[in-house]
Amino acid sequence: MLGRVRPSYEDKARLKEISGAILDRIEHLASVRGIGLKAMLVGSAARGTWLAGDHDLDIFLGVPETTPLQAALEIARLVAPEHDEKYAEHPYVHARVDGFEVDLVPCYLVEDASQLKSAVDRTPFHTKYISRRIAGLEDDVLLLKQFMKGIGVYGSELKVGGFSGYLVELLVLCYGSFPGVLRAASSWRPGQLIDLEGHAKKAHDEPLVVVDPVDSKRNVAAALTMDKMLQFAAASRAFLAEPSLDFFFPGPATPLSDEELLAQLKARESSLILVEFQAPPVVEDVLFPQLHKAEESVRALLERNGFRLLRSDVGSYRDRAMLLFEMEVWQLSRASRCLGPPVWEAEHLSKFLAAHPRPLSGPYIAEGRSVVELPRKYTRAQDLLAEELGSLSLGKHLSWAVRSGHNIYVGPELLRIDDEGFRVFLARYFQARARMG
Amino acid sequence: MLGRVRPSYEDKARLKEISGAILDRIEHLASVRGIGLKAMLVGSAARGTWLAGDHDLDIFLGVPETTPLQAALEIARLVAPEHDEKYAEHPYVHARVDGFEVDLVPCYLVEDASQLKSAVDRTPFHTKYISRRIAGLEDDVLLLKQFMKGIGVYGSELKVGGFSGYLVELLVLCYGSFPGVLRAASSWRPGQLIDLEGHAKKAHDEPLVVVDPVDSKRNVAAALTMDKMLQFAAASRAFLAEPSLDFFFPGPATPLSDEELLAQLKARESSLILVEFQAPPVVEDVLFPQLHKAEESVRALLERNGFRLLRSDVGSYRDRAMLLFEMEVWQLSRASRCLGPPVWEAEHLSKFLAAHPRPLSGPYIAEGRSVVELPRKYTRAQDLLAEELGSLSLGKHLSWAVRSGHNIYVGPELLRIDDEGFRVFLARYFQARARMG
Repeated sequence: MLGRVRPSYEDKARLKEISGAILDRIEHLASVRGIGLKAMLVGSAARGTWLAGDHDLDIFLGVPETTPLQAALEIARLVAPEHDEKYAEHPYVHARVDGFEVDLVPCYLVEDASQLKSAVDRTPFHTKYISRRIAGLEDDVLLLKQFMKGIGVYGSELKVGGFSGYLVELLVLCYGSFPGVLRAASSWRPGQLIDLEGHAKKAHDEPLVVVDPVDSKRNVAAALTMDKMLQFAAASRAFLAEPSLDFFFPGPATPLSDEELLAQLKARESSLILVEFQAPPVVEDVLFPQLHKAEESVRALLERNGFRLLRSDVGSYRDRAMLLFEMEVWQLSRASRCLGPPVWEAEHLSKFLAAHPRPLSGPYIAEGRSVVELPRKYTRAQDLLAEELGSLSLGKHLSWAVRSGHNIYVGPELLRIDDEGFRVFLARYFQARARMG
Repeated sequence: MLGRVRPSYEDKARLKEISGAILDRIEHLASVRGIGLKAMLVGSAARGTWLAGDHDLDIFLGVPETTPLQAALEIARLVAPEHDEKYAEHPYVHARVDGFEVDLVPCYLVEDASQLKSAVDRTPFHTKYISRRIAGLEDDVLLLKQFMKGIGVYGSELKVGGFSGYLVELLVLCYGSFPGVLRAASSWRPGQLIDLEGHAKKAHDEPLVVVDPVDSKRNVAAALTMDKMLQFAAASRAFLAEPSLDFFFPGPATPLSDEELLAQLKARESSLILVEFQAPPVVEDVLFPQLHKAEESVRALLERNGFRLLRSDVGSYRDRAMLLFEMEVWQLSRASRCLGPPVWEAEHLSKFLAAHPRPLSGPYIAEGRSVVELPRKYTRAQDLLAEELGSLSLGKHLSWAVRSGHNIYVGPELLRIDDEGFRVFLARYFQARARMG
């Protein structure tokens, strides 16, 4: 088991060799140009806690606060002539070097982590804090990371909303071992606080609060959603009750076949409505929050109009983004009640009556209020969506993408999307199974 | 106008003659048997406030509290050898005499209305109170009665839930005239209090409280529903703004033709579900409260199962009783969410999971709670109703009637009921128009 998650001796040697070469090249380039710069390997590669098969190197280019970050960025560009430039809080460089995905990130060298100028400046402090303490516990970190990967809660990117690598390391430090973490997590509930240095300075309202040992005001688990936190808690309990390799390596999700999709539609007798469009050219950490925002806007639109959702989800496949809505109620009567003012508010009442001179039924009185029955504009959820989607505020990238063209698929029309990524998404959607015991 | 509501001279003479003859006969029969009994004409006939065309005589047979009511009942039976026996709080006799509907009601002669042994003992006090004061205002009473009849709020029987004759008379006494009542009612709202004698002794929570001048603890308007009260208020305002004979004589409701029924179904695109059965052999004052109770039970059943009502109504035609439900949502997905305990309640959670070993989807976590999706038993409102109606508690008479056999008609199946009374009921249902301005 550990053999599958622990990097081999050869892997370790190769990582050391390649990262060493890059660090040397950076410092050489800096000294040639007379820039005081410190190159640092950070992240799991630096701490000996990277999972076998991962080939990510995070290398930071630290400059004093008096030097512009631009100087470090220019060196990063020279290190890897073939590269992409990316952008988080500041620009950085991403390149493939000998099979490794290397991020070259300029940052400031600050005195201590509470004085940082940008979020990335904190990272070297994390590496320093963990490296000193994690010795002997690397395997526990690897097991916990793989466990979380297996149950789908690993990764602090917004698409996942799960546990970051640093958070995993802190949990192992806090509870002493992989099983120790699972035992503790088994009884977690929202409001759980972990403060290794006992120096919490601020109240947080996230469901799990892990005070950053290097920055007492920061919650390391701020990006963790309550559902992912509790998914981990429930899976921990289930694993301890009945351990199985399956938790770590659940096997790949198989894409839904046409027959399986039809069988699902038949068993669920719901109305599935998919809105699908060209994904805007932004990173997932920008795309997914916008997709979720759009999901909420559409949900509200549907519910405001009397329809009812069973569940919804968002996702992407190839270069497409999508919003999926499963309706519990997708068809309404044409006649609908329109509530007027209380009957004794004479002026409001006359305005109300004047505004509805020819109702389907009424005006009548119900529980003291005037009521008319009027024809509803949309009796089917899909018509409402088709007509009103464009006028929702969807966030700038999505708004543009949706307006440039989108498709709506309802029920069996989903069969027309014969894409493996999409069918895996559907398979996961229908299963919707979290490990619990 | 007044000519249509005011009894003619001949009518009055005839009423006087016939009621006089009956009163004489009662007192003769009583004295022959040595019973101290006082025969009294009560109600609108006694007060000169009966509407032209009404031929109801209420004659009370009062005995001292020491005499059993049975003695008076036996005399009533002799007065009209061909009669029905009816039952309110106590038995009474109903007969047709020379074209009049005569009720012969035994009661006790009590000292004052606060010491009554039965509700009917109060009636002679009402007659005494009104007769003395109403002189000169009879036409106003007649106009108000006819106005209320025209807009559908006259009658304190439970089927109507409107204004009783006595209540109409008190309103005229209070506000001095027919237009005076309308002006005052125009600004009524729930909580309105009228206390002619200024002797209210008790708080009531009905929407209109009219303290009985002969019994300070009683609300004369206790049977008036809030909707009928406000319907009268709204119609009063509308009439004063634009008076029209139409309020008094709205013309008969025409039964819905097949074409009109189909046009309604098409315009409303709702699902109409009619439950129809042999009316139990009870008076309307027993039948209608039970129908309304059944309506509420079915409503709750439908809503508990996720369906949504637009409106509902109850009624009767010929010897049939019916419950009508118009659905805004009548079709649901087979898949439905079943909410389990919060994930951290380990014991509850395992029981929940064990109870649902093979859900359609899940278990998953949503807002901290475990959720599974299960197949719903009934996806159509009509199936739920057909299956579960028999197991609802419907009140004893209805329960028996429904279980002995009922029909369910959905949408266009309503065409199969080709009965004028039913079609008038439907016409009124679809129109559902109260006079407002």
